[in-house]
Formats: sequence, C-alpha cells, structure tokens
Amino acid sequence: MKLRDLGEFELIQRLTAIADRFGVAGTPGSAPFPLLLPIGDDTAAWRTSAATELATTDTVVESIHFTRETIPWEDLGWKVFAANISDIASMGGTPLYALVTLGFPASTSVADVESLYIGMARICEEYHTAIVGGDIVSSPTTFVTIALNGYLDGTPLLRSAARPGDIVAATGFLGSARGGLEMMLHGESVEPQAADYLRHAHRRPEPRIAAGHVLLREGVLAAMDISDGLTADLGKMMASSGLAACVDSWRVPIHPLLAAAFPDRAIRLALAGGEDYELLFTAPEAIMQRVLRQLHDAVAIGSVVEGDAGKVTVRDKNGNQMQDMEAGWDHFRS
Amino acid sequence: MKLRDLGEFELIQRLTAIADRFGVAGTPGSAPFPLLLPIGDDTAAWRTSAATELATTDTVVESIHFTRETIPWEDLGWKVFAANISDIASMGGTPLYALVTLGFPASTSVADVESLYIGMARICEEYHTAIVGGDIVSSPTTFVTIALNGYLDGTPLLRSAARPGDIVAATGFLGSARGGLEMMLHGESVEPQAADYLRHAHRRPEPRIAAGHVLLREGVLAAMDISDGLTADLGKMMASSGLAACVDSWRVPIHPLLAAAFPDRAIRLALAGGEDYELLFTAPEAIMQRVLRQLHDAVAIGSVVEGDAGKVTVRDKNGNQMQDMEAGWDHFRS
Repeated sequence: MKLRDLGEFELIQRLTAIADRFGVAGTPGSAPFPLLLPIGDDTAAWRTSAATELATTDTVVESIHFTRETIPWEDLGWKVFAANISDIASMGGTPLYALVTLGFPASTSVADVESLYIGMARICEEYHTAIVGGDIVSSPTTFVTIALNGYLDGTPLLRSAARPGDIVAATGFLGSARGGLEMMLHGESVEPQAADYLRHAHRRPEPRIAAGHVLLREGVLAAMDISDGLTADLGKMMASSGLAACVDSWRVPIHPLLAAAFPDRAIRLALAGGEDYELLFTAPEAIMQRVLRQLHDAVAIGSVVEGDAGKVTVRDKNGNQMQDMEAGWDHFRS
Repeated sequence: MKLRDLGEFELIQRLTAIADRFGVAGTPGSAPFPLLLPIGDDTAAWRTSAATELATTDTVVESIHFTRETIPWEDLGWKVFAANISDIASMGGTPLYALVTLGFPASTSVADVESLYIGMARICEEYHTAIVGGDIVSSPTTFVTIALNGYLDGTPLLRSAARPGDIVAATGFLGSARGGLEMMLHGESVEPQAADYLRHAHRRPEPRIAAGHVLLREGVLAAMDISDGLTADLGKMMASSGLAACVDSWRVPIHPLLAAAFPDRAIRLALAGGEDYELLFTAPEAIMQRVLRQLHDAVAIGSVVEGDAGKVTVRDKNGNQMQDMEAGWDHFRS
C-alpha cells in the first residue's frame, strides 16, 4: 500500500501505534520533566520546576506548500516561522529559541537563501525569538523546517478541553490568506487595494501571541490555531474533545476586501481556507465575555454541543445547514 | 553566486551575520532562560532554574546522505536519531523529547515508512527518549529531520573549551562506519565477519551518552562528537578554541576487522571517515587519567598546542607529518 492510498491521518495513527508499542510515545507524567499531554496538540508540552515548556515543528516543501511564483523568499522565511510561532500562540505560550533547517540544491542562488533568512530574522525580531542552531543540507528539493521551543506559566490551552455549551470564537479575519493564494494562482482580476491586502494576508501572517496570552490569563481552556481552515480545524478540536460544534456562517469574520474581491466565494474561503494563523477557542459564556471585551477583533461564531465527535455543522442565516463544506488538507491525497 | 560556489561554511557565516544584524542570533545571557553559548556548538544550550537544557536538529536527505541500496529503512530510522542523540552526548547531556519530521512522496510504500519508524522507536527505547510531536509532509524528495531536546546538570562540554597542553582522546573505534559504506558502495570483497561488523557500524551507530556523562562528571570541559571525521572535527574544535592539535596516527583506534578489510586504507578511513558518532574530547593529564580509567574503550591520540587556530597535524610513528589528509564534508561542494 502507498501513502496516497492510506492518507496522512491514518499514517499518523499507524506510526503512533508503533511508538506506543515500543513505549516511546511520551506517556504524560514520565520523569524527569513530565510530559503534560499525549501527541496530537499544536505543540508538545512538559513541565519543569521553572516553567511549562513547549516544542513544535513545521516544514514547507517547494511545489507542495509554496511556489516561487506566489511568495518571495523573504516572505516565505517570515511565513514558515509564523506557522511555528502560531502553534506556540495556540497554547497560550511565548516563543523563545528556534532551530532552522534549510535544504537547498547546490544550484540555488545565495541571494535567495539570504532573502529567506532575512524574512526569518524579521519575524524573530518582531516576536523576540532567537535562532540558536540548525542544519543546512544539500537537497534536490527545497525545504525549510523550523523547530521552535517556547514556554508559558501554568496549563496550556488544549484542543481536548472544549466542553458542551462552550461558545466558539475566532480572532481576526478568516479566508484572506487563501483568497490571496487563489488570486495569485488563477490571476483573478482584483482591484489594487484588495489585491495588496490579500497578497499580504497570504505572505505575512501575524501569529497571535498576545491574544493567546489573554486567553490563558482569562481562564480559557481550549484553543488551537487555524492553519488548515476553520471547519477542518474546528473538527479536529471537537474530535479531540469528543464533541461536536455548530457554526453560524454569517458570524464568521470576513474582511470587506475579501468580500469585495470574491463576492460569491468569500464565505467558503473563510470556512475552508487555511493559513490565516488566527486563534480558534471555546469557553463558557462568562469567560468568553471577558475575553471578547479585551480582544476587539475576536468574535463568537458558534457553540460546542454533544454529538458525533468531530462533527461540525455550518448553518446559514435561515437556520439551514450548508452542505459540501470542503474538508481539510491531506498531505498524501491532495 | 550559487551555493556551490560559496560553500556550506561561508553560507553559515553569512546567515549568522544576518541574524546578528537583526539581533536574533541568540546572545548568551538573554532573558528569561539565558542562552549559554552562541550558535556553533553541537547543540544549543540554555539555563533554567530546573536544568541546563539542550536542543539540536539533524536531517538526512535521500541520495545526499543515504541511499536505499546501502541502508534499510529501519536502520535509517535508528541512524538519523543516533546523529541527534550523539549531539546531546557530546555536551554531556541526556536526550529526552524528540520531534520527528518526515518528507515522503505519496508513492512511498507504507511498509517502508513503518520500518523507518520502528528503527526510530527502537533507538528511542534504548535511550529513554520519547517522540512527542512532529510533522509529516508530502515531498518529491525523501527526507527525515529530527529535533531533539535534552538536558544536563551543570555546564555543557564545549568545542571552545580546549586548552594548550590538553591531551586529545577519542572513544571507540574510528573509520568503521565509513569502511562499511565504502564496502557497500564499491562492492569490495570482504570476509563475512568483517562485512557484518562494518555494515553494522555504518547502519547502527551507538551514541555515547554514558561516556558523555563520565566526561561531565570528571571535569572534562571540551568535547564534540565525531560525525564528519576525526581530523575535520578536531579541526573544528580547535578553530572554536583558537588552538591547534597534533594527532599521533598510530594511536588512533582502528578495529581489527577494519584493518583486515582495508589493510592499506584503514588509517585514512579512521582519520577522515565520518558517522562513527564516537566522542572526541580534551583535558589536562590528571583529569584524562581519571577518565581513561573509567572509559575502557577511550584512548589518548594527541595533544592540544598553540598554533594556527584549527590546524591539525597528523604524524606517523617516525614523527613524519602525514600529508593530504582529506578535508571534511562540504554540503554544497561535494
């Protein structure tokens, strides 16, 4: 059987079963710095007497995750770091130290690699993160991997911590990053201001570290970042929590320039488009009210309910269920 | 200019200069968990109130670092982990939590990926390391990246801490891993016992965590692991310490089966062959004597001297300098 026949999620299950069989899957509680959660959240997390420590990694491969036509090198450097910083944000943490792995053909222009690295340095400066090591290798295919360590004080925000009756909320605007990609890939005709906004949304996402801190401080328990798309990621969060969720499509925050550029498809882009790196979180009403008063760009979009674990229902303004919401990204099937 | 014109080490210097320019190169001492050393040792290291923490990453790319003809998938999983665990060993530390990134074409057999992962699970079981996260992506080129966190109590063993008059020593046998590779690549005729030994040396290196602990406990200050070859790695250590070294070629430990298989080339394989993942360390004589009494497979092979930073001189039994020692591996020039 080939990977494309199995799919990414089944493969992860099989590999996790192997790690379990050998007792190396990281049982929470093992010494000397006990792991806080099993594999499967946005980051790994373990406790020391000094802090709760976080570690995450994210990779981009040329022609799979990016093309030179849709993102300049400097923006790519920013963006791959943003994906990792966003994972730390989704736990309520602060990024600290990064290892950078670069795989490039020997025929690559030095100036391109330097541009990539400048983008990384810019986002690290912005988020007070240091590049402390890494690996540089020759590779027929260009790829970039970041491994990022971070920390927080207390218990991280988990995918598995949603509770029935929680309100579901999201920060920022959704779908803009995907709108930017579609515009560039298909040469859609979009007026200049919207084109600038959408390109920027695709290339320079700003992970929500400060918002994550607010969630942690106010007692929110459940969060993740939106990297694969709202419905796909909410589905993962609900699967992890053993619950279901309803989303009111008309509450999903859509930027006016996305709506102007894609009047017919903006809602689907917002529901299914990934790479916005906003935060998705759930909390009981009292906590949610406190949070929304502090995060002016976050809005309630739905609620957590009992039901088939991982099921997400999207309703329109008339209460009708919207069908055929696109599924998330599968690495080996797309 | 292309990467192949610049070379790996010059590229690293340029990228480090960019990180410096943006203030993100990880200045030792920065809060809240102060970094202990600048980029360039075997691992990054920072201090918390709980421990000295270590982080390292290492990548292998198909057709660059390995071929399916010379290493089975399970052994590859073991070996890429071994390279990372060895970096932790070279600091005197203990590995703890790993993130695994896999890049594979969708046409890859699931059984191959499972075999790879079984090799990873086996070495993690052996070294009490847990796989706590990672990333699985589709990629035209197969690659595997490990990011590994570890810890130690005290100050790590550094490349930069060699002192004039120190004795240079190494653990284990050198050159066997490269001997195994040469045998497989060139179909050398080697008798079965030697062939088994050499293949195993290439495929299943055993990083020296316990030896690193002895070095740390006995007050050794300077160490690294031998991944690129003895003379190349000793040269890096001396460059980092601002010193030079002399090696007595006849003291370099060569396994009898390597000597039997490659009677004419064993010494050169031992001096220049990489991937043995043994430890190279220097210490004043009194400390070295205590260490060698405990590490029965470690031997003194030379000494640290004042001289051109990074220069390594190899002498034969008659005191003559051996010429043309092969240089280390350059990723973009080889």
